[in-house]
Amino acid sequence: MRRVLVGVMGPGGGASAEDVEAARELGRLVARKGWALLTGGRAEGVMEAASRGASEAGGLTVGLLPGEDASQASEFVEVVILTGLGQARNNLNVLSSRVVVACGMGAGTAAEVALALKAGKPVVLLRAGREAEAFFKSLGGAGVSIATSPAEAVEEVTRMLGG
Amino acid sequence: MRRVLVGVMGPGGGASAEDVEAARELGRLVARKGWALLTGGRAEGVMEAASRGASEAGGLTVGLLPGEDASQASEFVEVVILTGLGQARNNLNVLSSRVVVACGMGAGTAAEVALALKAGKPVVLLRAGREAEAFFKSLGGAGVSIATSPAEAVEEVTRMLGG
Amino acid sequence: MRRVLVGVMGPGGGASAEDVEAARELGRLVARKGWALLTGGRAEGVMEAASRGASEAGGLTVGLLPGEDASQASEFVEVVILTGLGQARNNLNVLSSRVVVACGMGAGTAAEVALALKAGKPVVLLRAGREAEAFFKSLGGAGVSIATSPAEAVEEVTRMLGG
Amino acid sequence: MRRVLVGVMGPGGGASAEDVEAARELGRLVARKGWALLTGGRAEGVMEAASRGASEAGGLTVGLLPGEDASQASEFVEVVILTGLGQARNNLNVLSSRVVVACGMGAGTAAEVALALKAGKPVVLLRAGREAEAFFKSLGGAGVSIATSPAEAVEEVTRMLGG
Repeated sequence: MRRVLVGVMGPGGGASAEDVEAARELGRLVARKGWALLTGGRAEGVMEAASRGASEAGGLTVGLLPGEDASQASEFVEVVILTGLGQARNNLNVLSSRVVVACGMGAGTAAEVALALKAGKPVVLLRAGREAEAFFKSLGGAGVSIATSPAEAVEEVTRMLGG
Repeated sequence: MRRVLVGVMGPGGGASAEDVEAARELGRLVARKGWALLTGGRAEGVMEAASRGASEAGGLTVGLLPGEDASQASEFVEVVILTGLGQARNNLNVLSSRVVVACGMGAGTAAEVALALKAGKPVVLLRAGREAEAFFKSLGGAGVSIATSPAEAVEEVTRMLGG
Repeated sequence: MRRVLVGVMGPGGGASAEDVEAARELGRLVARKGWALLTGGRAEGVMEAASRGASEAGGLTVGLLPGEDASQASEFVEVVILTGLGQARNNLNVLSSRVVVACGMGAGTAAEVALALKAGKPVVLLRAGREAEAFFKSLGGAGVSIATSPAEAVEEVTRMLGG
Repeated sequence: MRRVLVGVMGPGGGASAEDVEAARELGRLVARKGWALLTGGRAEGVMEAASRGASEAGGLTVGLLPGEDASQASEFVEVVILTGLGQARNNLNVLSSRVVVACGMGAGTAAEVALALKAGKPVVLLRAGREAEAFFKSLGGAGVSIATSPAEAVEEVTRMLGG
């Protein structure tokens, strides 16, 4: 009965329209695979879009929020964990995820990818940009995969989970 | 779709047989109310028993573990959050719970009750002992209720949730 | 060259005039012993008064703040650690202190005493009140000492440090 | 009397001999400027070397350790803060530093640089490597400086502190 948690991390307010669209599709595909979705939980950008996609597909959505206030949570997050830790919560996001998918890139997302590599978690990069791809590949080697679409990202997750 | 999380906190290795029995019944009743159960998630004592009870009654169980290792989680916890924070995770347990039920008493449980009062969360004490009851009543006033059975504790939670 | 850190914990806004006076004296005595003072660091109540006393006596003062904003720190804190963890920082206060002295009592202070006992740190209670004394003695046994003055509290710390 | 804390972050076990040499020189220069040195505090790599350099130059050294055990601390750290937070402590390192100097590069260091940018803290990169420089410049723009020697890094810190 233990759920497999797959993390989708990405920018909040700084997400592009394409990041958001990709995140929603990622959320849908994660849910269809039967995995629970873990995000940073806020009502913005990639977190919101991925949670929305997973929720629309009938999946379980978990959000680990930086603040103490449930009103910051996306309406598409079913299980709201209020950490009150600020950005220190990023480490919880990666520890609790079996695989981390980064969708888009920003300072917070970069911290999550780096912490995932530090913790030995496999990472899939989607829409990260050339500099991020080059840097994280230099840092994480075979632990980092680069995907070109949500479907390819989810295939990579499947492979990383041993399936 | 947002789930109401009710926290059940209590000793791990130091729990008595009566604490464990009460925790399992608490878990069952929480699940039957339709609330999700939040515990400290380890495979011991009150955390394990409450998760087992909720799981047996078909409820959703969430565990916030102190460590980084999923193997410490109770098999009855469906959503395992690995905080890696040690006892600092106690504050997350209370922030994420709408109401905190303490079942039994020990140093970690006392910290959780105190943090709940600090955060303005209502607390129900079950099997806490006379000294704990006197102290936490002196500290928390009307925010602290004392129950004499799992059923009474869950009635108190219902009242505190405004139902 | 490693400094011995002695923690003085107590209420902020809820401290009484007597708590504040005792805290300032505690800070002075801690500094005169050559120990560094560790507090929660805010510009209020016991934290501020203890830091002021230690600073006036030429001691080193360290503050672990709950927030991210240095402007909340007492002017008497020389080393300001901004944790951004909210009340989860209470666990850092006790882990980093060789001995914890609680001066006065409130929900946050109670959490710190409980976390200290959980971590196996010795605790001295000063001005805690009868209910707190009875409860923490029942919880911590020989790990908890009760002092009736700042001077007696510091004697207890000396004894606990093996001196 | 408030001390200016300057953070020096870098790899532990993965540090190169050149990283270690540069870190020791950085520590010396930070101390000579009258700043207190903040590191991750462990007895390895850049943390140890920077603390050693600052200590040799008579400076104050502060270490924020990931674990709960003081025996992991470098002997050159005067104020040991035991966070017990694992890698979540990286966020405390950057919040508590006025400027972050990264010396060398690895997954933990990358997380600290990213968290610094997220928190709006200025960052100086030394010995980061071409991919890291390109990525963090793309992420942080004018908030990221690249230095080619410890002396140049400390000049940059001076400029960033408004001096």
